[in-house]
Amino acid sequence: MRKIPVGLLGLGNVGSGVVKLLGDNADAIRHRLGGASVDLRRIAVREADKPRLVDVDPRLLTTSVASVLEDPEIQIVIELIGGEDLARRFVLEAIERGKHIVTANKALLAVHGDELFAAAERHGVDLYFEASVGGGVPIIRALREGLASDRVDELVAIVNGTSNFLLTTMTDEARPFAEILKEAQDKGYAEADPTLDVDGWDAAHKLCVLVPLCFGTRIRVEQVLVEGLRGIEPIDFRYAERFGYVIKPLVIAKDHGDSVEARVHPTLIPRRFMLAAVNGVYNAVYVSSYALGSSMYYGRGAGMMPTAVAVVSDVIEVSRNLLSRSSGGAPLRMPTPSGDRGQRRIRAAGELQSRYYLRFAVVDKPGVLAQLANILGEHEISISEVVQEGARKEGSPVAVVVTTHQALERNVQTALSLINGLPTVVEKTRLIRIFE
Amino acid sequence: MRKIPVGLLGLGNVGSGVVKLLGDNADAIRHRLGGASVDLRRIAVREADKPRLVDVDPRLLTTSVASVLEDPEIQIVIELIGGEDLARRFVLEAIERGKHIVTANKALLAVHGDELFAAAERHGVDLYFEASVGGGVPIIRALREGLASDRVDELVAIVNGTSNFLLTTMTDEARPFAEILKEAQDKGYAEADPTLDVDGWDAAHKLCVLVPLCFGTRIRVEQVLVEGLRGIEPIDFRYAERFGYVIKPLVIAKDHGDSVEARVHPTLIPRRFMLAAVNGVYNAVYVSSYALGSSMYYGRGAGMMPTAVAVVSDVIEVSRNLLSRSSGGAPLRMPTPSGDRGQRRIRAAGELQSRYYLRFAVVDKPGVLAQLANILGEHEISISEVVQEGARKEGSPVAVVVTTHQALERNVQTALSLINGLPTVVEKTRLIRIFE
Repeated sequence: MRKIPVGLLGLGNVGSGVVKLLGDNADAIRHRLGGASVDLRRIAVREADKPRLVDVDPRLLTTSVASVLEDPEIQIVIELIGGEDLARRFVLEAIERGKHIVTANKALLAVHGDELFAAAERHGVDLYFEASVGGGVPIIRALREGLASDRVDELVAIVNGTSNFLLTTMTDEARPFAEILKEAQDKGYAEADPTLDVDGWDAAHKLCVLVPLCFGTRIRVEQVLVEGLRGIEPIDFRYAERFGYVIKPLVIAKDHGDSVEARVHPTLIPRRFMLAAVNGVYNAVYVSSYALGSSMYYGRGAGMMPTAVAVVSDVIEVSRNLLSRSSGGAPLRMPTPSGDRGQRRIRAAGELQSRYYLRFAVVDKPGVLAQLANILGEHEISISEVVQEGARKEGSPVAVVVTTHQALERNVQTALSLINGLPTVVEKTRLIRIFE
Repeated sequence: MRKIPVGLLGLGNVGSGVVKLLGDNADAIRHRLGGASVDLRRIAVREADKPRLVDVDPRLLTTSVASVLEDPEIQIVIELIGGEDLARRFVLEAIERGKHIVTANKALLAVHGDELFAAAERHGVDLYFEASVGGGVPIIRALREGLASDRVDELVAIVNGTSNFLLTTMTDEARPFAEILKEAQDKGYAEADPTLDVDGWDAAHKLCVLVPLCFGTRIRVEQVLVEGLRGIEPIDFRYAERFGYVIKPLVIAKDHGDSVEARVHPTLIPRRFMLAAVNGVYNAVYVSSYALGSSMYYGRGAGMMPTAVAVVSDVIEVSRNLLSRSSGGAPLRMPTPSGDRGQRRIRAAGELQSRYYLRFAVVDKPGVLAQLANILGEHEISISEVVQEGARKEGSPVAVVVTTHQALERNVQTALSLINGLPTVVEKTRLIRIFE
């Protein structure tokens, strides 16, 4: 039976998972391809002699990416080297040589997606990217195929497992962020450089992959409101619970008709909301659409084997297209903005509306709450609930915690800069947005 | 641009949703088809002059199914008449005439799936059925494509919205089943004849669609252990809560390697399990697979518009296949048992293992608990927890509630028939299985 020659770029965590899964499930894959098999021909690695996470025939390894891209027999290239510039160059070259692409690289798609999808279309090749968001959870397929007949209005999701693990642990253990991050790094749950994860950039890249799929509108990472987790304190989880919320690392995107909003930040959500039950390293994407209403897709969003599931499932589908000679039919291509809902403007950060949780650290003196309330009121920020601690001793700082009704981000930021300048305010005010 | 002529059989609830969605989202659908459009040519109905749930051009309506099946221009037939025999005849005839099929009919697939898929393969046509399970939630796609590279080990799901609505309401309101069922019928949440829903048969049909997708093994409805909801009483929800559980209407299927188990029954599940948060008419399918681990797919499992999403998304995909001349590639066809994991035997009811919740109604006399415990012990049923009520007055019946460790269904049934025959046992013992 027919063999489909495949080349792999990168043999790190996910690449090793792909090699393992192609081996472990070879029979099942052959069955799904009606007897044809996926034939891993060549694996480009940075160092040939490194210890590997998986048993691999050393004759497959090469340090020359060119020897993969220039192999005329290879029909599918799996890109798992990550990063933007080199990956872009390799993927473009593969496309130009008529090879189909499977990638897990959200940064690549977020930054160079337009160029790559256009090149794939020109050359009639497939470009599949299920593994770029939500690990093995087939969210890209759900949006592109399952909801193909529907219109997505809003997407709210947990797409960074490290962040969710950190906030879940803080919820359960009430210890400081830095301490829990350190532990997670020691255990390998967080990267040595956690910036991409805890500062929200990994999630923002994923949101930039999801927004065009949901709304037919392109977005650049710079247009997303991005806030990370640093600075959330154990006490915030206690107040959140008191108000009936939990804190989750969300990405939120909404279609306003004339414009689209996109943001990434830790968020208070009601305890009864389905996403509140998504804990640890799990991801979930919650979609609101016109005809289906609410739907949710949940599972492991990272890790060697879960991500390999998405990569290899894409390889199977690209192979099926090859076998049925329907490559480039692009069922999973990003929609072009010329479509049913064209390119819309992305709302600026200041235009966003939200409810807010504000924790003020103030000197415990009569009239302080009135002062805060005045400034908020002058900026059209109306208060929903207030909790004011009694001071442990006269004159020491206390917390005043406020939740607001819907307010405009611009007004909130202006009000906070005034409030933070007050002599009675002893620390920068903690702001966490509320979603419900 | 090209038009794809489509015929519809049935204009009930879901059929009306399909007509509405094809109209409301026509632009989006055209965009997804690269400019081609879905052209609804003919709708076969039982009565031509009935009032309709949706505006429809009366010239499209016909009472002659033959005029749809024999129209040489129609390329896709959407079957929404339900039932088994007529639907089978119409679908087979359409296939033989080279037409592609989209159906929402789980009973049809559960009973005649083998014959229909074989016919579709012979004639090189597509047979899509996303709407048959989980309404608009793309669970069929997730299993066939998203997890194509993985191996499913277990599936636990809520696939009957009416049953979930009834149990959720009983949980919240502690009123008798019959009363809540009556209300649901008055409000249109339950059918006038609720048998298919509350007695588990609708769920069993859906399980028979899912099992071959998950495990490559065929199953007949008669091979599924099916128990309905009748006879669960408000008091069972109170005891469930006391033990840390909620009661959900589950379907469970598990691959044991040499055999496959499949069952449908109300089930106690731990409050922290994700499915415990799935309330009201919502459905959810929780999948355990080798590489991905746990994943869950959640949303509205029934209703006019949610089910229409699945039907129309299938129509879009069948249309794409037509446009790329790759019909019959069968990415969504049921796997044949000759595949990676061949036809396995289905476990008989007596072979199943589970933990059990048993509520005994006994006369409050010393030694009764010992008597129950003896009979259970003699049948290798070991007790995990016991709650024994004090009697309100001497000699009146009281409840003894037991949870067991894993036990064999056959042993439990034998023990209960002995226990139910005891003179101290005044009512048939209530049995609910526990899943964790």
